[in-house]
Amino acid sequence: MKVDGVPYRTIWLGQDGWSVEIIDQTRLPYHFETVRLASVDDAAHAISAMLVRGAPLIGATAAYGMALAMRAGASDATLQAAHDRLLATRPTAVNLRWALDTMAALLRPLNPDARVAAAYREAARICDEDAGICEAIGNNGLALITALHEKKNDRVNLLTHCNAGWLATVDWGTALAPIYKAHDAGIPVHVWVDETRPRNQGAALTAWELGRHGVPHTVIVDNAGGHLMQTGQVDMAITGTDRTSANGDVCNKIGTYLKALAAHDNGVPFYVALPSPTIDWTLPRGSDIPIEERGGDEVSLIAGRGPNGEVVRVQLTPDGSPLGNPAFDVTPARLVTGLVTERGICAASSDVLAGLFPELARAA
Amino acid sequence: MKVDGVPYRTIWLGQDGWSVEIIDQTRLPYHFETVRLASVDDAAHAISAMLVRGAPLIGATAAYGMALAMRAGASDATLQAAHDRLLATRPTAVNLRWALDTMAALLRPLNPDARVAAAYREAARICDEDAGICEAIGNNGLALITALHEKKNDRVNLLTHCNAGWLATVDWGTALAPIYKAHDAGIPVHVWVDETRPRNQGAALTAWELGRHGVPHTVIVDNAGGHLMQTGQVDMAITGTDRTSANGDVCNKIGTYLKALAAHDNGVPFYVALPSPTIDWTLPRGSDIPIEERGGDEVSLIAGRGPNGEVVRVQLTPDGSPLGNPAFDVTPARLVTGLVTERGICAASSDVLAGLFPELARAA
Repeated sequence: MKVDGVPYRTIWLGQDGWSVEIIDQTRLPYHFETVRLASVDDAAHAISAMLVRGAPLIGATAAYGMALAMRAGASDATLQAAHDRLLATRPTAVNLRWALDTMAALLRPLNPDARVAAAYREAARICDEDAGICEAIGNNGLALITALHEKKNDRVNLLTHCNAGWLATVDWGTALAPIYKAHDAGIPVHVWVDETRPRNQGAALTAWELGRHGVPHTVIVDNAGGHLMQTGQVDMAITGTDRTSANGDVCNKIGTYLKALAAHDNGVPFYVALPSPTIDWTLPRGSDIPIEERGGDEVSLIAGRGPNGEVVRVQLTPDGSPLGNPAFDVTPARLVTGLVTERGICAASSDVLAGLFPELARAA
Repeated sequence: MKVDGVPYRTIWLGQDGWSVEIIDQTRLPYHFETVRLASVDDAAHAISAMLVRGAPLIGATAAYGMALAMRAGASDATLQAAHDRLLATRPTAVNLRWALDTMAALLRPLNPDARVAAAYREAARICDEDAGICEAIGNNGLALITALHEKKNDRVNLLTHCNAGWLATVDWGTALAPIYKAHDAGIPVHVWVDETRPRNQGAALTAWELGRHGVPHTVIVDNAGGHLMQTGQVDMAITGTDRTSANGDVCNKIGTYLKALAAHDNGVPFYVALPSPTIDWTLPRGSDIPIEERGGDEVSLIAGRGPNGEVVRVQLTPDGSPLGNPAFDVTPARLVTGLVTERGICAASSDVLAGLFPELARAA
């Protein structure tokens, strides 16, 4: 998408034809800076220090990390070391392992001489594939916004939670892809952006990327969405998902469930945008998903730009008050109006989902 | 309630027998400091600069402000000037006007010589009356927690939103009064404290007062409560209210509605504690209540204790991103299990509420 008129992806090949460039997302929303990755160590650091985040982008960065490793030395030992080094950066990221295994499986049978070119080709393919999936989600979801606009003949108000935008992927994003498509097609859209405590990905990242692309939006606290829906100020809610069970229960950033409840109570359609790889076909129900409890520091401390322009962390809670920090919640399928996938929109139910992806459902 | 073992109210007469002491709530939760009010100007500043907040405490401070004014000079002109000066501090506070009108109506007919003593007496009476109402709410709500404990025979987990504790009143609080009563009676309780963005009264004030009194609690982001209810970690939710319509719709801090939805979806009882003066008998439905839209700075900027120990404000959102800040929402009566009043617990419905307060309902 665009940053002040200039098209960007979150990761791209440098002008030298071999180094890799990324956006340092830890500096957002105050500073837009790109960083050059010239080694597997640079790539590993970018992932572990969260300069890049979001499952698809982590996978893409790891793939390019393998390419950088091959360029420095394409032996079997280097290949294995790079795989292990990159995998250790964020051990629980499913997409990271998938990208590294894909790269290793492709490169291992090749003659070391052929590995560098093949690695760069495959990394680029992984990036293009992700962007293609997200763009397809955008095109499918665009139909929903178009229909709302035709019915209303006025600005369409959307609400989103967390960051499921292009910054979390290679391009387009998931939940935000239909919104970019609508905006670019000239449909007047406006996005209510949940700040998304505790890590504030909405306030910091979603607001930034919408603003830089020129999409009208308003940042709100997570508490506000219910009232906005009660008073007719939201036409549709759309979020991403970290993991969706086979029956369409949606595990996503903590607080998503509350917005789905409010949407249901007020007759506001609630959609979830997801690339099919985030569907866990082996999981019958969302209630089986273990919810990560993260550190209390994310609740008690918050980072922002201080009076001198530098980013500082401040403490919000009394010394000694215990802190709880469940990172995700599960929105039951009954509250989900539909799932927006790269193959089309479908109801959040086992049969319909398996019907749309028969080969994936069968394989599970 | 207690601060580290020492009993406190939020406002009390100084040892000299005429000055008034308060807790500077702008310094919480990092510093516990009391401030001496020696003039009507001190009292007006305490209200306008929000050293005191919460409707009952604002009213009590204004009443003592009138007493301080009388002590400095008890003429009719002084009386009127003090009334007007104090009323201008927070013009929309209903309780403030009520307390000032009560004081003025009592003092005006008196001989100036008699006004000082009468003013101090009346201010003390207003404080005692408020503490008595809150304690009655506490005793009535205690029955709910006792019943939960008897049924469960284990720690009772409560969830609250914003600050409806003793810091918002003269003593006891409203939503927290039953919790203090239960804790003091030896019932094991634990409170999930919503941080309550954007002003964070939960994280700053509720957590502080529970902690200092020794009540087990955990601070969470506002997004977390739904998940906690889904997973059986909340036995009852209880909040305060700023204004309740005659049919039992509850206007309270933004986000209350989302918690009520989650409670309803999970069969968790959802109670609202309220002194009868917060019932607006002239208002048939909560949807008629205009919702205050406050400044966006409350969303984009947040105050906390910085690395050097001083309180600083930091910016959370990108420059230029528009901000929305509705301050309250309305929880429909259908989601409210019951109202905890000073006269007892009742269903949130016009008939039942009017039956409990027949003289107030008739007068409206």
